[in-house]
Amino acid sequence: MAEDDKKRLTVEIYGQSYRIKGYTSVNHIRTVAGFVDDKMREIAETNPKLDTTRIAVLSAINIADEYFRLKEEYEKLLREKEAAQPGKERKSI
Amino acid sequence: MAEDDKKRLTVEIYGQSYRIKGYTSVNHIRTVAGFVDDKMREIAETNPKLDTTRIAVLSAINIADEYFRLKEEYEKLLREKEAAQPGKERKSI
Repeated sequence: MAEDDKKRLTVEIYGQSYRIKGYTSVNHIRTVAGFVDDKMREIAETNPKLDTTRIAVLSAINIADEYFRLKEEYEKLLREKEAAQPGKERKSI
Repeated sequence: MAEDDKKRLTVEIYGQSYRIKGYTSVNHIRTVAGFVDDKMREIAETNPKLDTTRIAVLSAINIADEYFRLKEEYEKLLREKEAAQPGKERKSI
């Protein structure tokens, strides 16, 4: 895909602007940015003394934790599906 | 689960220490922290002028992007599995 196919969008996260680009839709970028913004506000509310860098790192840890849990569920489901339909092509992420 | 069941671990992310607690294994916490640390270093390498807060926020965006893509794949797989085995219990995340 050419560089020109990239979508560009400025989003606001925790009071700062970020220029995001990616091959996905503008809606997807907005969803992702909103998710990070919510997570940062949630962590800041629970830990009012944290500086912005630590809030952002803890948000990243939090999201990565959810990612790895989902990955485990995904792989479990994939194994179940393969066991139910043996011989089908394996799909990997 | 009681508060005492929580695992506690100090991890180093991008040169700073974070005291992480959670109900998952120490190995899981290490994997998650290592993933965030790698992501921050990768972003810092590509964008050497960014400050640590922006590096952390962009890492969070990046990980959230992967999370939402995986979520889509997971839901697709779940629909396929349900279509192949109608009447089975629905599993949600």
